[in-house]
Amino acid sequence: MTTDVAAELRARQQITDLIYDYCRLLDAMDLISLAELFTDECVVDYGPGPGFQSAGAAQLRQDLARMWRWTRTSHHSSNVQITFTSSETARATSYVLAWHERPDGTAATMMGQYHDELVRQSAVWRIARRRQLLTGNDQGFNVDINRFERMPDLRAR
Amino acid sequence: MTTDVAAELRARQQITDLIYDYCRLLDAMDLISLAELFTDECVVDYGPGPGFQSAGAAQLRQDLARMWRWTRTSHHSSNVQITFTSSETARATSYVLAWHERPDGTAATMMGQYHDELVRQSAVWRIARRRQLLTGNDQGFNVDINRFERMPDLRAR
Amino acid sequence: MTTDVAAELRARQQITDLIYDYCRLLDAMDLISLAELFTDECVVDYGPGPGFQSAGAAQLRQDLARMWRWTRTSHHSSNVQITFTSSETARATSYVLAWHERPDGTAATMMGQYHDELVRQSAVWRIARRRQLLTGNDQGFNVDINRFERMPDLRAR
Repeated sequence: MTTDVAAELRARQQITDLIYDYCRLLDAMDLISLAELFTDECVVDYGPGPGFQSAGAAQLRQDLARMWRWTRTSHHSSNVQITFTSSETARATSYVLAWHERPDGTAATMMGQYHDELVRQSAVWRIARRRQLLTGNDQGFNVDINRFERMPDLRAR
Repeated sequence: MTTDVAAELRARQQITDLIYDYCRLLDAMDLISLAELFTDECVVDYGPGPGFQSAGAAQLRQDLARMWRWTRTSHHSSNVQITFTSSETARATSYVLAWHERPDGTAATMMGQYHDELVRQSAVWRIARRRQLLTGNDQGFNVDINRFERMPDLRAR
Repeated sequence: MTTDVAAELRARQQITDLIYDYCRLLDAMDLISLAELFTDECVVDYGPGPGFQSAGAAQLRQDLARMWRWTRTSHHSSNVQITFTSSETARATSYVLAWHERPDGTAATMMGQYHDELVRQSAVWRIARRRQLLTGNDQGFNVDINRFERMPDLRAR
């Protein structure tokens, strides 16, 4: 059992690192390395707008070139939670606080969750599916990200 | 010793997940599931105001219905630090950055620490005591949270 | 191998705790304890300005007294990534979102990365070198931190 626990904790660390790599490489706009974090056939869904749903790592890399419209970004990942669905597959939920700056110096901040499906391929964990949900944003941020939904308010009124 | 290390690292992961569960379930306003993260006799102290000190998970669940006054919240947890006081009890300090939006679209952000006492009951870690301290806030946030205190400034003046 | 994995995961937890200790002790302005997180001969480089490059833990402790000019700070660490360069040395990259408040109530927020070199001395991990890079800031923050650099934009124009 100890071996199993150590192996699982190692996989958790590797998946957490993968989620952090995405943030670090996106802030660096190293889109070639970033695309390698995803499976070739990945499905990435940021929101309903055109170009915000990418099929495959190659298309994702092209689509994320839209981030060049910002002069600086800073992606702060947190609350990483992982559930294993097999020894080679997992689901993860994480939070992100993403700050973006425009060429005119104005800024836009969004807060959200990534809901990921991960797979281990040749000993390397990759993102097979990613769906982003918007939990909050300031008034400078107006990108059409999928909305996070609360539970219904069932209190008597 | 390896077994002990693996078991302790597993407990750290479980407690960290517990702290993240709180944030995720609060943002979803799933207060039924959130209350189950606490012991039945928990003591939770957010601040001196009325309704901000809850005795027991059932009361906490009722008290946190106040969060419905916000239309959206986003709780970003970080800096989780855990110290074990026995094999079944621990203390944890963590940071939170919590963004809240009102029905009129204005927002309020607070930053703070949770100081938790945790206990393992039937193999599940739960929060037995939680005290929140305010380390920072924007001008939109005016809830009376317990204040974090710095060290005194002992420099000669 | 299990022993090695458990030992490495333990070291990752200890280094992560060290990075969080820095934030917690800086917000508390416990500069005596904070200086003990660094090696005696550490080199810390926040930016090009005078007093922002500290040689040695004793000087760092003196230099960080500048933080008293803020009435409150809140340092949110995230995205901690660790690579071991030997069993006793490692490199870490982490993100920070640091909020600062002035005596007049105005605030300044910066976002950045710490690039650290760590060493284990007598079983305790310490920071031997730290370099801070600025990934973002609001208009209230005007401290001269080292700038984070993106990749060049190689798209055809």
